[in-house]
Amino acid sequence: MLRVVVLGAAAGGGVPQWNCGCPVCTTARSEAADLQSSQASIAVSADGAHWFLINASPDLRQQVTATPQLHPKRGELRHSPIAGVILTNGEIDAIAGLLSMREGSPFTIYAHQRVLAILKSNSVFDVLSEKNVKRRPITVDHAFEPTLPDGSASGLEVLPFEVPGKGAWYLEGKAHPAGNDGAGDTLGLRIAEKASGKYFYFLAACARVTDDLKSRLAGAPLVFFDGTVWRDDELIAAGLGNKTGQGMGHISMSGSHGAIESLAGLAIGRKLFLHINNSNPALLKDSPERKMAERAGWQIPADGTEIEL
Amino acid sequence: MLRVVVLGAAAGGGVPQWNCGCPVCTTARSEAADLQSSQASIAVSADGAHWFLINASPDLRQQVTATPQLHPKRGELRHSPIAGVILTNGEIDAIAGLLSMREGSPFTIYAHQRVLAILKSNSVFDVLSEKNVKRRPITVDHAFEPTLPDGSASGLEVLPFEVPGKGAWYLEGKAHPAGNDGAGDTLGLRIAEKASGKYFYFLAACARVTDDLKSRLAGAPLVFFDGTVWRDDELIAAGLGNKTGQGMGHISMSGSHGAIESLAGLAIGRKLFLHINNSNPALLKDSPERKMAERAGWQIPADGTEIEL
Repeated sequence: MLRVVVLGAAAGGGVPQWNCGCPVCTTARSEAADLQSSQASIAVSADGAHWFLINASPDLRQQVTATPQLHPKRGELRHSPIAGVILTNGEIDAIAGLLSMREGSPFTIYAHQRVLAILKSNSVFDVLSEKNVKRRPITVDHAFEPTLPDGSASGLEVLPFEVPGKGAWYLEGKAHPAGNDGAGDTLGLRIAEKASGKYFYFLAACARVTDDLKSRLAGAPLVFFDGTVWRDDELIAAGLGNKTGQGMGHISMSGSHGAIESLAGLAIGRKLFLHINNSNPALLKDSPERKMAERAGWQIPADGTEIEL
Repeated sequence: MLRVVVLGAAAGGGVPQWNCGCPVCTTARSEAADLQSSQASIAVSADGAHWFLINASPDLRQQVTATPQLHPKRGELRHSPIAGVILTNGEIDAIAGLLSMREGSPFTIYAHQRVLAILKSNSVFDVLSEKNVKRRPITVDHAFEPTLPDGSASGLEVLPFEVPGKGAWYLEGKAHPAGNDGAGDTLGLRIAEKASGKYFYFLAACARVTDDLKSRLAGAPLVFFDGTVWRDDELIAAGLGNKTGQGMGHISMSGSHGAIESLAGLAIGRKLFLHINNSNPALLKDSPERKMAERAGWQIPADGTEIEL
């Protein structure tokens, strides 16, 4: 059985974001704490005992505390069911949580060499000694089986593939530690259980849906997809910033080239948005946008949502 | 009036720590959620409207959400009462929270040039653009007045001073970006309200109490002090690790050279431990160690504790 737990569904900053007074963040701080959402990450397991995180959000410590599946085994002084972390990009909201995985438990970081180069060039990540925390490069279009800390098989097969996106924005205009060829900055993942062949897709960042991507996703039982913004200019329209969704490398939910429209009719079993920005009105349960998304078969998952395939 | 809010009181890793099955962490995950404690940081204000954080813990986002004083002003789309962050060292548990202060609100980071050099040499911190987030070096034994984002006076006066300690351990055995002269790695702070002269001390890391330090702290109305371990070898004795308190640059609470004994008889008005490790039995409310600490006049503050001077 392939098990997934949604640790967080929000985009960078989370809900509420420390400095944000938008309707969603304000409501989440006061009358509707159930609107609170931590930053996007999921945990996946083939055996229910060993788990792999997809991305390490800045909220990782709270996410682990809130998720019984990720608690240390009873009776062990130091232990974690987390066998590894698979990174799909180098943004702060995907990597900062690694800094909360100190204290010597063994696990493996799987990432494209461009992201590993970022970790290597930032000495703060040396807090995870290479002795306990192995770094394993992953390659676009090459499936791999993540391993458990003792080297044994996890029962999972992960296929990373390139998706339209952008590099980490704190490196914009600067020399990338792995050079300025952008390939590998934004990955999608196909994650399968080897024994049963069950699988799902994870794309927390994606700038547009190409025909190739449509073919890939068609018929999938489950897809997690980039839900950052409802419409491309919503941050500007709301007075929250000067960036468009596209400028940040993210597709919109709505519109003729948006995610809802682009992924319609592909016979996908279950569709969940992830990496949803606090500016996105679809976060509000009674909003027309939320209803449109739900009518189109999309779910906006609460932190802790469990799915079994 | 000088106002202080304890945002978190735990040492690095917090309570519960992601991979820890010690009695404190296990209890905090299950029957006693009130044992949960986020990583050490306080907020201080002279006017109740503008606040300065002392250190930026990895739990910063949750700490801000839990602290009404730090919420954006009602009616403002983007705002934060946090005017600045004063760093006393470069450990992960003191700086990682800066990565949760993205999104363009202006504030100032005050730190010794050794810590600023760490931030500068780690590109992830470039996520805080120098345009919005000023870096201001602070100097041992030179008092400064932190300013508000518009340049006006905060009404606070902060005196940094050197205390016995250690450099950030992820840089151990490596070239420090500011060179290998250790002065300035661990600071204590005297924080005063200029108008009233009211003041307190903050020492979240301190390896030992020297006679100079005793003279400094004598008669202070309030002291926050390093409470990492109860006894020097407790991590080893509990099977949780191979480090001593001293090896990490931290004094013990107990013992003839410990904090309780060393700071006794100094006529300090109120004494609170901060940076308390999950291995420390004084965290357990009914433990003999807790009772000894309390009988000696020490408090182990819960997250959110407010103090006014």
